Amino acid sequence: MNRELFKYRTGLRVRSYEVDWQGIVHNTNYLRYFEVGRIEYLRHIGVTVDMKTIQGSGKVVVVRNEIDYETPAFYDDMLDIYTRVSLIKNTSFVMEGIMEKSGTGLAVSHNVAYFVWLDPESNRPKTIGDGFRKLVQEFEGDHCQIIWPSVDV
Amino acid sequence: MNRELFKYRTGLRVRSYEVDWQGIVHNTNYLRYFEVGRIEYLRHIGVTVDMKTIQGSGKVVVVRNEIDYETPAFYDDMLDIYTRVSLIKNTSFVMEGIMEKSGTGLAVSHNVAYFVWLDPESNRPKTIGDGFRKLVQEFEGDHCQIIWPSVDV
Amino acid sequence: MNRELFKYRTGLRVRSYEVDWQGIVHNTNYLRYFEVGRIEYLRHIGVTVDMKTIQGSGKVVVVRNEIDYETPAFYDDMLDIYTRVSLIKNTSFVMEGIMEKSGTGLAVSHNVAYFVWLDPESNRPKTIGDGFRKLVQEFEGDHCQIIWPSVDV
Amino acid sequence: MNRELFKYRTGLRVRSYEVDWQGIVHNTNYLRYFEVGRIEYLRHIGVTVDMKTIQGSGKVVVVRNEIDYETPAFYDDMLDIYTRVSLIKNTSFVMEGIMEKSGTGLAVSHNVAYFVWLDPESNRPKTIGDGFRKLVQEFEGDHCQIIWPSVDV
Repeated sequence: MNRELFKYRTGLRVRSYEVDWQGIVHNTNYLRYFEVGRIEYLRHIGVTVDMKTIQGSGKVVVVRNEIDYETPAFYDDMLDIYTRVSLIKNTSFVMEGIMEKSGTGLAVSHNVAYFVWLDPESNRPKTIGDGFRKLVQEFEGDHCQIIWPSVDV
Repeated sequence: MNRELFKYRTGLRVRSYEVDWQGIVHNTNYLRYFEVGRIEYLRHIGVTVDMKTIQGSGKVVVVRNEIDYETPAFYDDMLDIYTRVSLIKNTSFVMEGIMEKSGTGLAVSHNVAYFVWLDPESNRPKTIGDGFRKLVQEFEGDHCQIIWPSVDV
Repeated sequence: MNRELFKYRTGLRVRSYEVDWQGIVHNTNYLRYFEVGRIEYLRHIGVTVDMKTIQGSGKVVVVRNEIDYETPAFYDDMLDIYTRVSLIKNTSFVMEGIMEKSGTGLAVSHNVAYFVWLDPESNRPKTIGDGFRKLVQEFEGDHCQIIWPSVDV
Repeated sequence: MNRELFKYRTGLRVRSYEVDWQGIVHNTNYLRYFEVGRIEYLRHIGVTVDMKTIQGSGKVVVVRNEIDYETPAFYDDMLDIYTRVSLIKNTSFVMEGIMEKSGTGLAVSHNVAYFVWLDPESNRPKTIGDGFRKLVQEFEGDHCQIIWPSVDV
């Protein structure tokens, strides 16, 4: 994962109760931190995120998560989370994350999360709204591959 | 707290990720276990508990929690949680819990939780429904003090 | 609880996964936030807090927690947590917390937590070290009641 | 993932506080459930799992997690978790999991978790002990691919 491609950073500090019996952050909590990073990212680029929808028009569900653990984080560590949308297809998109110990550049973990955009009524996949595509494109430029729905001529 | 007064028991096992950096169950997780006990209790006595209401007619919120920690619980411990409604007043009720290590009678912690019954529309306290009072009374008999709303004559 | 007595404030933001199915912060997570406040407070006044001990000389366990819920906190709320040590006795001490929505003064919850200082070897209560008492006294002045161990003459 | 290959099942019930603001189990909690399944599996086949080591001889760390979400789980759902070791190499091994709603065969999620066996002193990868290999082989038979460390002739 190429850190140069990431334009957005969120910081957070490990809280005491997020550390497990091995004295390190529990392996599932890194995924929670990446979620924090994603929500901050979306808000930063202008996407309205509320409890049920993105932009009021689609319900978004995570369909796959991949995480690589590099170095454990400890209590009180300050972490930097870099987030980006790397790909938008017709009804799905991909977000990537890199987590580092602040100020050191030491990699903590990498995450790739896959989402599908659903129609809130039918729960069926639905073409991702142009508003979302445009906001990502404005922010990411050509760092995000965006496949626009084909238009018949 | 007198264990003789408790007629309902729920069992659960401590899960790995509930243990903190001291190697014991994190102090807030005991309260989560008592919540499990309360929901099981309510269901057992016939109270419909869904995500928003009790009995479809009232929204219930916790207004106070007290917990005494006696002995720490460890990973994989089987715990017994004894639960009861000890008091029902006009718009509020009290539930008590005792947690023990299964088969040993060793006390882990004690909990007293205070609830208020709200009108789901106005969010104002509302007289607790007779249905709830009756189900508790049937199960607890005179172990629960129930103050029925006064009726004008 | 008198907010005037509190000299230390920690801020934190509610994270997405801390919100429960009712759309509000789960009742046990407020206690986790108060723990964050306490650890920050202790560090701020100069007490060394690591995973096992306070000041390297004592193991500290929580023996009782009381929490009053005033107003629910929601996703993304910024919260102010005010923390203080209100009482130090021979082998035990008491910490209080007030949680408010930042910038509004709206009370979210109040907490009183009771701790006992143990000998790390024997797990028996142990007289609280003078170092801890002095650091609290320096910071709190007469806002904290400190009972010094009696000295035989 | 072929369910026929799985010989071990753990059951668990979704607890109230594991459900997020969307009314479904939070996406990170499925990974916690798979961890419960793995620990139960290891114990079942005779591997000693304590807080720090497996078999007292190696420290095991997770280096990668992959999870596919099929159908959300809800409060109070009974879940079946099928677990197996699918591959053992020199210093690493792979565990797979399938989660279903009990009694329905409806897939909830699939997990692949990658572990490395470390020397507890040096924190360097270490050849996985024969004891672990044998216990897995006895239980899994040819369902698990085991690469034994090469022996010079």
